[in-house]
Amino acid sequence: MGLKVYLAGEIHTNWREDIAHGCKGLDVEFTAPVTDHDSSDECGVAIMGPEKDKFWHDNKGAKLNAIRTRKAIEDADIVVVRFGEKYKQWNAAFDAGYAAALGKPLIVMHQDEHQHALKEVDAAALVVAQTPQQVAAALRYVMTGALPK
Amino acid sequence: MGLKVYLAGEIHTNWREDIAHGCKGLDVEFTAPVTDHDSSDECGVAIMGPEKDKFWHDNKGAKLNAIRTRKAIEDADIVVVRFGEKYKQWNAAFDAGYAAALGKPLIVMHQDEHQHALKEVDAAALVVAQTPQQVAAALRYVMTGALPK
Amino acid sequence: MGLKVYLAGEIHTNWREDIAHGCKGLDVEFTAPVTDHDSSDECGVAIMGPEKDKFWHDNKGAKLNAIRTRKAIEDADIVVVRFGEKYKQWNAAFDAGYAAALGKPLIVMHQDEHQHALKEVDAAALVVAQTPQQVAAALRYVMTGALPK
Amino acid sequence: MGLKVYLAGEIHTNWREDIAHGCKGLDVEFTAPVTDHDSSDECGVAIMGPEKDKFWHDNKGAKLNAIRTRKAIEDADIVVVRFGEKYKQWNAAFDAGYAAALGKPLIVMHQDEHQHALKEVDAAALVVAQTPQQVAAALRYVMTGALPK
Amino acid sequence: MGLKVYLAGEIHTNWREDIAHGCKGLDVEFTAPVTDHDSSDECGVAIMGPEKDKFWHDNKGAKLNAIRTRKAIEDADIVVVRFGEKYKQWNAAFDAGYAAALGKPLIVMHQDEHQHALKEVDAAALVVAQTPQQVAAALRYVMTGALPK
Amino acid sequence: MGLKVYLAGEIHTNWREDIAHGCKGLDVEFTAPVTDHDSSDECGVAIMGPEKDKFWHDNKGAKLNAIRTRKAIEDADIVVVRFGEKYKQWNAAFDAGYAAALGKPLIVMHQDEHQHALKEVDAAALVVAQTPQQVAAALRYVMTGALPK
Amino acid sequence: MGLKVYLAGEIHTNWREDIAHGCKGLDVEFTAPVTDHDSSDECGVAIMGPEKDKFWHDNKGAKLNAIRTRKAIEDADIVVVRFGEKYKQWNAAFDAGYAAALGKPLIVMHQDEHQHALKEVDAAALVVAQTPQQVAAALRYVMTGALPK
Amino acid sequence: MGLKVYLAGEIHTNWREDIAHGCKGLDVEFTAPVTDHDSSDECGVAIMGPEKDKFWHDNKGAKLNAIRTRKAIEDADIVVVRFGEKYKQWNAAFDAGYAAALGKPLIVMHQDEHQHALKEVDAAALVVAQTPQQVAAALRYVMTGALPK
Repeated sequence: MGLKVYLAGEIHTNWREDIAHGCKGLDVEFTAPVTDHDSSDECGVAIMGPEKDKFWHDNKGAKLNAIRTRKAIEDADIVVVRFGEKYKQWNAAFDAGYAAALGKPLIVMHQDEHQHALKEVDAAALVVAQTPQQVAAALRYVMTGALPK
Repeated sequence: MGLKVYLAGEIHTNWREDIAHGCKGLDVEFTAPVTDHDSSDECGVAIMGPEKDKFWHDNKGAKLNAIRTRKAIEDADIVVVRFGEKYKQWNAAFDAGYAAALGKPLIVMHQDEHQHALKEVDAAALVVAQTPQQVAAALRYVMTGALPK
Repeated sequence: MGLKVYLAGEIHTNWREDIAHGCKGLDVEFTAPVTDHDSSDECGVAIMGPEKDKFWHDNKGAKLNAIRTRKAIEDADIVVVRFGEKYKQWNAAFDAGYAAALGKPLIVMHQDEHQHALKEVDAAALVVAQTPQQVAAALRYVMTGALPK
Repeated sequence: MGLKVYLAGEIHTNWREDIAHGCKGLDVEFTAPVTDHDSSDECGVAIMGPEKDKFWHDNKGAKLNAIRTRKAIEDADIVVVRFGEKYKQWNAAFDAGYAAALGKPLIVMHQDEHQHALKEVDAAALVVAQTPQQVAAALRYVMTGALPK
Repeated sequence: MGLKVYLAGEIHTNWREDIAHGCKGLDVEFTAPVTDHDSSDECGVAIMGPEKDKFWHDNKGAKLNAIRTRKAIEDADIVVVRFGEKYKQWNAAFDAGYAAALGKPLIVMHQDEHQHALKEVDAAALVVAQTPQQVAAALRYVMTGALPK
Repeated sequence: MGLKVYLAGEIHTNWREDIAHGCKGLDVEFTAPVTDHDSSDECGVAIMGPEKDKFWHDNKGAKLNAIRTRKAIEDADIVVVRFGEKYKQWNAAFDAGYAAALGKPLIVMHQDEHQHALKEVDAAALVVAQTPQQVAAALRYVMTGALPK
Repeated sequence: MGLKVYLAGEIHTNWREDIAHGCKGLDVEFTAPVTDHDSSDECGVAIMGPEKDKFWHDNKGAKLNAIRTRKAIEDADIVVVRFGEKYKQWNAAFDAGYAAALGKPLIVMHQDEHQHALKEVDAAALVVAQTPQQVAAALRYVMTGALPK
Repeated sequence: MGLKVYLAGEIHTNWREDIAHGCKGLDVEFTAPVTDHDSSDECGVAIMGPEKDKFWHDNKGAKLNAIRTRKAIEDADIVVVRFGEKYKQWNAAFDAGYAAALGKPLIVMHQDEHQHALKEVDAAALVVAQTPQQVAAALRYVMTGALPK
């Protein structure tokens, strides 16, 4: 059993690498949004030309990023969404809702401090975890039936 | 043409009433989540019995609320999502993503200060508005073709 | 908001009437399988003619009943499944799985003694309840936002 | 023609191996739930941390197992469900209902003694068999057109 | 429970009236193809203009009839298909296949002499009947649970 | 049998009224885009505020109009698309493609001069007509089986 | 571009081989029902045990064959259905309807004598052909753009 | 991440080659309609035999081409539609509508002069570009996150 796993959300720490590391040896294909913050913000105008208005500047970029994001969610067997300590991260919650509506199994990862604010997102999840190691262990169990020792 | 419109998101101001007021005379049926904050938080344990653990306390409530929320989104012709000034409001973004994945036309409503943080949500919307009056005018136009004078 | 609710499962106690009673005044339309045990068992051969073989006798009846059951599940906004104290009740679990795969919100109702055996079914549910009164209260809350006093 | 076949249900006998043995030489990919009973029961708390309450202990595990189970059913061309002699086996019937609602061809396998109790499940099946040898022969025929000699 | 029932197939006997008669008092809405043979054959050219070539003459008519037929099948809760004693009746079998692929419950009605030739169609049906009275009784049972006396 | 019919395309002649006139007495509900050219062009900026750039001026309007257009197509039983003598009318062809992909029966209406340029659109249609009278006659036949005298 | 093509219908002449021969060099994967008439008739009872009643004898076989047939249709990019000179061939028409409802491009192949009786089936087709050579040429054109010389 | 990209629309310039050139080194599979104008016009009659009537001549060809076109759109991850300077190009707009209804990300490519006439098509797009180089850069960014230097 091979799995495609989309890693959505927070882009300022190494959690994606940590999960990949924890899944070594498994047939998992990970996908992710463009995690270079500047490229992600500037892509629309850099390719299709500048906009005077900040709204349309962002709109062009967000639509271009949506091509990647939606394909990755639609292709995924599992969507993992991490909420970090900072920022609004509305796109993370948007991706979680998008995945839930498509019936994708959802793994949500966040610290205790966000528990109450994320209760609706957690309620849509099949796994709620706190660390990348837990997520990796969950993926390993799903694929092999093996539990951590 | 009658419309079913789900009004998702912020629950601390009167924006739902303002939109309804602006749509007087139109064949619109508005739905909304339970907007009583305390009931919404306590519903799970109040009906199915207490939980020692805050996570499961919230989980039971969020799942019960999800019955109402998802039915309302799935039945809606249009989903309006308002982001207020305060709080994380991840459930608003989750609802927006959920609606987008179902192909529901999305109207997003927020102030300029959140423009950059909401760019992915705005990029999925057919209308981005700032006031309930604009939303009501948009709904009136969609249904009747009449523009505000 | 009106709701269509399918009441699947156990047919030897009055739980369907109890839920209906608890929902008095609400715009709920309840549906159910044919709850007359003998009619349900004999319907196939009674209408389309006898079968020598018990397997086909049952097969003809079960297929005829499936017309009613599947339409009711597909039309339902919510599927309630009750597991009683006795019998295998595989058709109750089958209906629960059928409803889950269609994305129907699932309310499961059973006593504590079956908790472990029903853990996969419970895990697919948005509400797990023990009494018809709880189910009625949950439906009332979903429709009106009112909690029991 | 290659086939993906999910083998759901009873986990205490060797029927999965027997079917695989009977399909030697065919391009069949078999999948199954985690068949180690203890791992399956403990996986949720072993990975995401302990629960005081048995219900949530089981709930965490059942949801984690659901990731594997649902992916396997959704990927399958055919779902085989075996009902054994003992236990409630409600998850087997749940899987059968889930598969049926997705339009998956269903092969059900059980002894005569359960015939009446399983009539609704059998009525949703394209094949009702008693032995792993029959199931293997049916798969071989589907793929090659060859009948047993 | 109201039902929409599409009555496909043979157009030379009164079976549609017989079923309607047998369903008196029930909330059933019956639909049917255009059963006037000449109108059905000529409709395309009568409305959109003549064709020199018999193939296109028929093609224009068959496509116009398909608007009615497909809407009726898609709207139906149940599709009844009757095969008569004469003619090829390929459109009856086509409608049966169309309905089956949409997951519509299928009731097939024919005499014994066609049993072997119709085995694939019968195998897709939930009810195989011989008389309009049986079909009416089956519909009555599905809706009310009442068996014929 | 009632029908919902969406009348897409050309907005400079009275063809919509002609079809409605020809369908007098039938249970047809007609929908259409906003046919006031100026309102349709200006709606976005009139409601949500001005844009310096013509592209975004048009973009805001077109998205608002899309709410009405897509709902009408999705609700329709039949989509009629008329191509007039003038202009590019790419939105008419876009609507035809949109309707075709949703499996909506398509009636296309145009003069002979556009026959070759519209061959792909015509090939997706169940009816190709030249006059509103033919379209009305086709709708009448679909609903009643009556042919024009 | 590779294609999967299901060849449904008549099983007494070599038309499947003729099409395959005409497609030499193309990346086409052909599938077909079991074309050995006796195996196809006897498969159910040969594997799952005898039936006294001819109806159930055939029913068991037809359901087993349906596993192969439906998978092949659902996997196909194109469904070719040939109607021969003899027999009722209702399963051919059933397969055509099934494929049409799934939106599969349909190629129908038959002689002129059946033209009127097959007009509804032809009207659902994208290609109506008379010979295997035409079908092969059509497939070659779809894949390569090359016309026969 | 590999991508399948369908290149619809104008067939008289080298824009398809330009995009392919700009995507060198990427795992993109491009598909296109048959771009030989004469073959595309004549294919139907060349293979299935002549028609006296121009309408049916074109109809046979357009339906055959539709097999290729629809499969390519349905298989595509992204649909690029180019509108050239000349001709009606209704099939380009039809393809854009078809792709939009299937939820395919749409990249539209045209000159400024068509901006107003294409506003509805542009409003359904995630990217609006003017040159093949921009389209190639957008595809490269989607796949690798790299921006042009």
